[in-house]
Amino acid sequence: MQSIQISESERDAFYKVLHNRRDVRREFKPDPIPQDVLMRVLEAAHHAPSVGFMQPWDFILVEDLAVREKIKVGFEVAHAEAAQMFDAERRETYRGLKLEGILESPLGICITCDRQRTGPTVIGRTANPEMDLYSAVCAVQNLWLAARAENLGVGWVSIIHHDTVRQALGIPDEIMPIAYLCIGYVSDFHEKPELEKAGWLPRADLQSLIHHDQW
Amino acid sequence: MQSIQISESERDAFYKVLHNRRDVRREFKPDPIPQDVLMRVLEAAHHAPSVGFMQPWDFILVEDLAVREKIKVGFEVAHAEAAQMFDAERRETYRGLKLEGILESPLGICITCDRQRTGPTVIGRTANPEMDLYSAVCAVQNLWLAARAENLGVGWVSIIHHDTVRQALGIPDEIMPIAYLCIGYVSDFHEKPELEKAGWLPRADLQSLIHHDQW
Repeated sequence: MQSIQISESERDAFYKVLHNRRDVRREFKPDPIPQDVLMRVLEAAHHAPSVGFMQPWDFILVEDLAVREKIKVGFEVAHAEAAQMFDAERRETYRGLKLEGILESPLGICITCDRQRTGPTVIGRTANPEMDLYSAVCAVQNLWLAARAENLGVGWVSIIHHDTVRQALGIPDEIMPIAYLCIGYVSDFHEKPELEKAGWLPRADLQSLIHHDQW
Repeated sequence: MQSIQISESERDAFYKVLHNRRDVRREFKPDPIPQDVLMRVLEAAHHAPSVGFMQPWDFILVEDLAVREKIKVGFEVAHAEAAQMFDAERRETYRGLKLEGILESPLGICITCDRQRTGPTVIGRTANPEMDLYSAVCAVQNLWLAARAENLGVGWVSIIHHDTVRQALGIPDEIMPIAYLCIGYVSDFHEKPELEKAGWLPRADLQSLIHHDQW
């Protein structure tokens, strides 16, 4: 059997994509995403690993401005609730952060998880029922990296309640929303994560996170 | 500001890595992983997106054979339980599948999530408390893809109970195990997922998973 090898230059190209991926909120341009580019990005998501080859994901492409406005209102509600959870000192910093690009980006993509897709018993999910949700998250990360390989920015809008997303997009009760993503071309990609640049938290030292054989 | 662009050939190299990633169980070789290679793969995981820049992950590198044998026993227990959940027809197929490479691969990597890492209030986790778990899953997927870029195979062992993993690796109660991965060089990578090849389930048609504006 002849197995496909990745060369050093291909490896380096892969790492260039991975290390230059950012969570984008502010820099979206309205330019539409060509259909062939979008399909490559969705194919990448669809080729994520999934428990028991369940492929539990769906992709809702959200272009309609009226629908995106509902998502935006849902963000604003959850964002106002969130601000109250920070102490006074951090609340002002929090309010000053730009945390979504729902209306600025030309497209939203909602990735969901159908937990019943292949019946009640799924290989690899028997001991850990959350594995199907994790598979859908792997699809999110594949999509995010593929978008960067296409010079597209992505931002994950997590400050919104699932029920709001369900209502705005007509998602059935039994389907679990995993991520609402904003995607589009960008004026630039930041060199570092914005929360690192803003001094909110530092990058952790990798060595401090590595354990040998025992925690 | 000059933003880093990904060229077409770099994009294609990225997709080559992504589309040739497999869940490996059977083809591991015992060859050790060089330290610089392992560190690049862990750096890739550490550069996953994380909610509120929380970086909730730790990495337990499991080389000790006695520890890996405990993991293997834990797999066998959960695997025997799982077999009983399939109907008679599928049970024999299930039993015939090779679903882990715990002892054959030279290294296990357990990725965990410290849900308290940066305090009780985390940007982006206020409406969706599961976001920190999802961040750790993004680290798993980054690691998996980076391993493929280094021609290393990875298999996710999900047929094991969290408590078994906690006990074998001395993980504190408040830390959530996310994934136990087997990693190593391989004799070959399959062209397609094994469960697809085995006829367990077909690859879904991507078009059937795409919705426009509404589910």
